[in-house]
Amino acid sequence: GPQITFGPDDKGVLQIDYKGQFQMTVRDSGSGTNNDDTTTNFNFRRNRLALMGAYGDMMSLYVQTEFVDQTSINTLGVNSTPTNPEFTILDAVVRFNLHDAFNVNVGKFKYNFSRENLEACEMPLTLDRSLFIRAPFVTTRDMGLAVWGNVYKDMFQYRLDVMEGRKAASGESAPKSNFRYTMRAHASLLDPENDYGYKGTYLGKKKVLTIGGAMQYEPKVAYSNVAAKTGEKDYYAWTLDGFFEYPVKDMGTITVSGAYANYKLDNAYLGANPDTNTIGLNGEKNGWYLKGGYMLPNLPLQLFGRYEKWKFAQLNNIYDQRVDWAGVGANYYIWGQNLKVTMEYGMTMFDKKGTYSGPDGTNVRTKDFNTFITQLQVIF
Amino acid sequence: GPQITFGPDDKGVLQIDYKGQFQMTVRDSGSGTNNDDTTTNFNFRRNRLALMGAYGDMMSLYVQTEFVDQTSINTLGVNSTPTNPEFTILDAVVRFNLHDAFNVNVGKFKYNFSRENLEACEMPLTLDRSLFIRAPFVTTRDMGLAVWGNVYKDMFQYRLDVMEGRKAASGESAPKSNFRYTMRAHASLLDPENDYGYKGTYLGKKKVLTIGGAMQYEPKVAYSNVAAKTGEKDYYAWTLDGFFEYPVKDMGTITVSGAYANYKLDNAYLGANPDTNTIGLNGEKNGWYLKGGYMLPNLPLQLFGRYEKWKFAQLNNIYDQRVDWAGVGANYYIWGQNLKVTMEYGMTMFDKKGTYSGPDGTNVRTKDFNTFITQLQVIF
Amino acid sequence: GPQITFGPDDKGVLQIDYKGQFQMTVRDSGSGTNNDDTTTNFNFRRNRLALMGAYGDMMSLYVQTEFVDQTSINTLGVNSTPTNPEFTILDAVVRFNLHDAFNVNVGKFKYNFSRENLEACEMPLTLDRSLFIRAPFVTTRDMGLAVWGNVYKDMFQYRLDVMEGRKAASGESAPKSNFRYTMRAHASLLDPENDYGYKGTYLGKKKVLTIGGAMQYEPKVAYSNVAAKTGEKDYYAWTLDGFFEYPVKDMGTITVSGAYANYKLDNAYLGANPDTNTIGLNGEKNGWYLKGGYMLPNLPLQLFGRYEKWKFAQLNNIYDQRVDWAGVGANYYIWGQNLKVTMEYGMTMFDKKGTYSGPDGTNVRTKDFNTFITQLQVIF
Repeated sequence: GPQITFGPDDKGVLQIDYKGQFQMTVRDSGSGTNNDDTTTNFNFRRNRLALMGAYGDMMSLYVQTEFVDQTSINTLGVNSTPTNPEFTILDAVVRFNLHDAFNVNVGKFKYNFSRENLEACEMPLTLDRSLFIRAPFVTTRDMGLAVWGNVYKDMFQYRLDVMEGRKAASGESAPKSNFRYTMRAHASLLDPENDYGYKGTYLGKKKVLTIGGAMQYEPKVAYSNVAAKTGEKDYYAWTLDGFFEYPVKDMGTITVSGAYANYKLDNAYLGANPDTNTIGLNGEKNGWYLKGGYMLPNLPLQLFGRYEKWKFAQLNNIYDQRVDWAGVGANYYIWGQNLKVTMEYGMTMFDKKGTYSGPDGTNVRTKDFNTFITQLQVIF
Repeated sequence: GPQITFGPDDKGVLQIDYKGQFQMTVRDSGSGTNNDDTTTNFNFRRNRLALMGAYGDMMSLYVQTEFVDQTSINTLGVNSTPTNPEFTILDAVVRFNLHDAFNVNVGKFKYNFSRENLEACEMPLTLDRSLFIRAPFVTTRDMGLAVWGNVYKDMFQYRLDVMEGRKAASGESAPKSNFRYTMRAHASLLDPENDYGYKGTYLGKKKVLTIGGAMQYEPKVAYSNVAAKTGEKDYYAWTLDGFFEYPVKDMGTITVSGAYANYKLDNAYLGANPDTNTIGLNGEKNGWYLKGGYMLPNLPLQLFGRYEKWKFAQLNNIYDQRVDWAGVGANYYIWGQNLKVTMEYGMTMFDKKGTYSGPDGTNVRTKDFNTFITQLQVIF
Repeated sequence: GPQITFGPDDKGVLQIDYKGQFQMTVRDSGSGTNNDDTTTNFNFRRNRLALMGAYGDMMSLYVQTEFVDQTSINTLGVNSTPTNPEFTILDAVVRFNLHDAFNVNVGKFKYNFSRENLEACEMPLTLDRSLFIRAPFVTTRDMGLAVWGNVYKDMFQYRLDVMEGRKAASGESAPKSNFRYTMRAHASLLDPENDYGYKGTYLGKKKVLTIGGAMQYEPKVAYSNVAAKTGEKDYYAWTLDGFFEYPVKDMGTITVSGAYANYKLDNAYLGANPDTNTIGLNGEKNGWYLKGGYMLPNLPLQLFGRYEKWKFAQLNNIYDQRVDWAGVGANYYIWGQNLKVTMEYGMTMFDKKGTYSGPDGTNVRTKDFNTFITQLQVIF
């Protein structure tokens, strides 16, 4: 989109962008009378309007809306009724760039935990980021304040944040109202990665080797017995990650990246009536992913693969469930990231299969499935 | 709104528009202790922000938000509690204009069925499009992919689309997850109508005679017995439409347009426990409308009338209900479509009247009513 | 944000603004097992995008979105679960500036009742407007039509509006569908306040002494017995307000403002089954506020205080509850209202305390509490 300048000496600048990822999904199960038939769907994965502003060198603004349309295809299966559409302001952050080694972000923005979540949504290596990387009680963004900076010729980066974490709530649902604290650091041994956001691939424009790690903590975040208001459990998570990308003349660009992450909720799921947020996809879990890509030297085509292994405290009524996820695909960059076609074939494999009953009386079927997605990305 | 250019050679362009239709409604019933008193209401019929972009000659973008505020006045009556407000992205489509005879639309946009639905929302002939023209399981827009073009000096236009139709859902609610297929064609015997969108009136700037038709199909879209998961019914619809507008010097402009449409759901409504989407306003139905206008030669005043006759499988618990709708009114174009005042008096007449009970235990009263609407339209 | 001109002779102009108020809240109770522990929260008080347009001298447009994120800290306590996020179009108004003494507003905008509600949201004297000033059945905005103007050298201003008031509804919930009528007038004895919106402070740029008053009326707005559909009650409100601001050279600027308001619903709350909108925070009530500020002469620092006293028909199951609210704080204007930091300490004190049961079986605890809020305001 256009950049518009304003104010004295054109000190102010505002850019308006549209960012869309439109997908056709074909999954080999989930519909039909017995839910064994193919499910097909058109939908947007992302559908956003962004305002990027700056006023002078010290202050900048990033505001982005997100519209999630009705959808029934989810990470673990297919819903019987689509979700309600939801239009939100996803990011609204003011950034004070006081010094390369001292920047302050205030507002709603990505928390500083995993590299994967901090990689730009429109610039992943594979179709999308990991489906299993989200921290408990929040989405990909949180609200609060972060301090960060680069030191020693941008070789090292540190980040500290204080954020909302679980939304404040009275004692009926949460044992305490506390902020969430995160610290993250990385070392970039080749070209620096000195921005707040990472990228999943630099398309061969940079030589990067970055090793990072982070910790996140929120005390007394959930009850292990909500009905009795007992079992005050803390949230603690840590992660280690690495990213390597290297272009070789006439040979193409190789990208390899991986991470391990562990999200602990102090075994709240073993309680008599645990908070439902301590279990499931974004509850207590640990796992790792490894992803790799190869971009051709003379054609804007990038082949990629991803493998993940996760263990969940409880998933679809199954305790200590393990999930393997594997995918392969390709990006074709017609106009770089501004007009890109991606195809990905992904396999979701469960260790324990079958239909399990939950304490709430629901019966949920767990069954392996495969998904083929074709995506058109437009950044305008 | 303004057009802003950007990029090398000002190849990119972005226009920002606001489009509002603010209405004062007076209906002769629907409120008061016995629901026989006059109902009055201020509300927006449309309240939109649109981004229209293009990059070079080949690619363009159309993104439009819609905000539907709380409302309790609906097509058939007055609610006891207003609906929740809903903010959505209504259109988000990338258009590749590869050739006059071959264009591709990808994203969320109007499906290619009835001319009436494809007429621009801000340029109808009467106050609004037909209230009864919407296809089952979708709104006025759907998601997917369309291919269309003009051939033989723009005299003929064809359109094909593959779209989501009913949102993918598991077997508990739908027999199958299928795409919906539509084909439409028209012949323009005088001036061409070669855009994707039609207009309800060209305000005397064009001489138009267009005949069109369309078919739409989605297999296994609904159960006639949801509880038993039996009775897999297909959706099939067809329509024929015509549009004529002719300006005569010093005499004014005459507009006449009409259509017949038939939306079939294979008699799903006769089942023991039919899907609720197969009945009601957007379920199985057929009917026609005829609308006409006369615009004065030297004054931006356009008088109009509309007559419609529809038969519904089931409406407000009444089987095989017939509805007649008649309306007259006028548009006054202060600044063309950018600032327009419209007044319309509409009569909604039911064949069978009275209070009927439904299988869900509800009692709904069906009674004729009249509505007078004054609308201010602003496109900025 | 930038102003963009367009159209012939650059007759059109559009400005795009972002307006955010990001808050850190610390309240001395509301969470923890017994709801007696400190509650902490990051959230936006306001998070808005505004489009301000004009076309020539006669017509202008104001469209503003508001995003209210999930929140659990409310005026009277802390929720056990956060509210759902809500994205809306808050303002959408076309203004016809026909003459200084005759302007017409059409659409959705602030109704003409209390000065406090009409003061610009980003320019209050204290952290925010009064928490108790909202009229029944509406939010801070309503939909309809207003006529207003300034007469006698802008010394006097009049305003008349016809608006929706309670949303139209059938007889099951409301006795009648009527519009709401408001009239307001003020006299400005020093510098004129001749805009539609007031300000809570002019930062010493104006000398102002304004006395105003208003009345509001909507007949048959609610039942005192909803179940029986009896007890048709009218809504009637009146208010008186004053504002004084005076800068003294080298001494600083003094601001004093106050109002009394009385919102009557004809004692509907005494009925056997009153409409829930006739009670609570925005039901039948009366009260007053007094606020004052002192801005330093050579530093953009403004100290402020506010005191309020209200009587509610029924609040948290307590009849004839009285609430005292007192607060002190400071604004620091880094870049005027465009970048401002505000801190405020507020005390909410109830006359009757304890846990009361309601006719719906709920038990609600009423207890005094104190809240400290730090806010960063950005208008970009």
